[in-house]
Amino acid sequence: MRRRRALQIIPIDGLPEVGPGDVLAELLAACVRPEPDLLAGDVVVVTSKVVSKAEHRLVDLAAGGLSPADVVEAESVRVLRRRGDLVISETTHGFVCANAGVDLSNVADGWAAMLPHDPDRSARRIRDGLRARLGVEVAVIVSDTFGRPWRRGVTDVALGVAGIAPIVDLRGCTDSFGRPLVATEVAVADELAAAAELVMGKATGVAASVVRGVEPAWLREGSVRDEVVRSPTEDLFR
Amino acid sequence: MRRRRALQIIPIDGLPEVGPGDVLAELLAACVRPEPDLLAGDVVVVTSKVVSKAEHRLVDLAAGGLSPADVVEAESVRVLRRRGDLVISETTHGFVCANAGVDLSNVADGWAAMLPHDPDRSARRIRDGLRARLGVEVAVIVSDTFGRPWRRGVTDVALGVAGIAPIVDLRGCTDSFGRPLVATEVAVADELAAAAELVMGKATGVAASVVRGVEPAWLREGSVRDEVVRSPTEDLFR
Repeated sequence: MRRRRALQIIPIDGLPEVGPGDVLAELLAACVRPEPDLLAGDVVVVTSKVVSKAEHRLVDLAAGGLSPADVVEAESVRVLRRRGDLVISETTHGFVCANAGVDLSNVADGWAAMLPHDPDRSARRIRDGLRARLGVEVAVIVSDTFGRPWRRGVTDVALGVAGIAPIVDLRGCTDSFGRPLVATEVAVADELAAAAELVMGKATGVAASVVRGVEPAWLREGSVRDEVVRSPTEDLFR
Repeated sequence: MRRRRALQIIPIDGLPEVGPGDVLAELLAACVRPEPDLLAGDVVVVTSKVVSKAEHRLVDLAAGGLSPADVVEAESVRVLRRRGDLVISETTHGFVCANAGVDLSNVADGWAAMLPHDPDRSARRIRDGLRARLGVEVAVIVSDTFGRPWRRGVTDVALGVAGIAPIVDLRGCTDSFGRPLVATEVAVADELAAAAELVMGKATGVAASVVRGVEPAWLREGSVRDEVVRSPTEDLFR
């Protein structure tokens, strides 16, 4: 068994409570040393909740005379399904998720967090900020926890990326019998977000982690919005 | 940054081409040494393709006078969508996926592979076989690559498990503001399958890997069929 191609997933501890206007790259840079904590080619996964807080994507429900449902409605461009309090809707980004990503957990009482406006841009800002502060070229994924149809339970997915391919196209490759593979586009950023969730978890208060050992060929510019979000016309379930 | 809670994902190299009747635990045991390659509490992720081969879940299309579409039909209990050659259907297991999981890649020309009959049982058999041969108590996940609606690209999910919780219920826990979390059931087996895919990949010929450092509380008996598969009546997208 070779360790050469092993991946490591390491939680980043010590991130303080994040508030509006905080610079996430600065807070993260204070938690890690350029080496050995952060190496060139590492992928830093940051949960969207702290990005939303830093980017003022919080709403004071009472002050605005709003219910959570009002915020969900404002964040949705299309409702796909409703059952009781649960709304499955398409967000302004094109994501399809529960309650348009509006979340009351891990925010102050009476407040709601909305998804970042442009998670790809958020990821680039964190990546650029870490480069400026630590001199290390990393990739960044902004992640969130989504449900899915047909299978119970939630998994983390990538909302935005910087410096990492959201999708890796294996169509040019061959299977182990030498035949060309057809239509194997692997959503590696989503798999990295899912992997990172395993060391973070909703309850532990760890909002960022590092994935080390990612295939160097995957480290390119990319966009979740452009490459992962499926257009309604292409989608069989909308 | 603490390394204590880090995860490692390590590919298992050297698995030979698997054929009908092969005992996977025996083939895997020949690739790893009990220590340091395999430790108690490790999660061994095995792709369903090699499980299908070992379990005679292959069909000779020409000999049976069958087209791939015939096999897809036979493996489906319900078709959800069709577009061109693509069928999204529900399998006998309750999985919803493309072409009922029937796959022509990484099998001999003219043959098709079907999903294992009972992937939870397949996982238990591999787990029991590794325990018998190596004296190490590991968990096992049988994984496969599924697409999903709304997002492009495929990710690996768990079809069967042994010794690991498919879903971890955080509903008893509190967020970092001390409030009870509602309805946060994390599909950790799917996240582990996704993480493992990152070191395996469709094209590299690596069909198994080890995830080390998994939270010990997740190591319990479980079943993907009982805990992950959502019943049609509970599902909003069927």
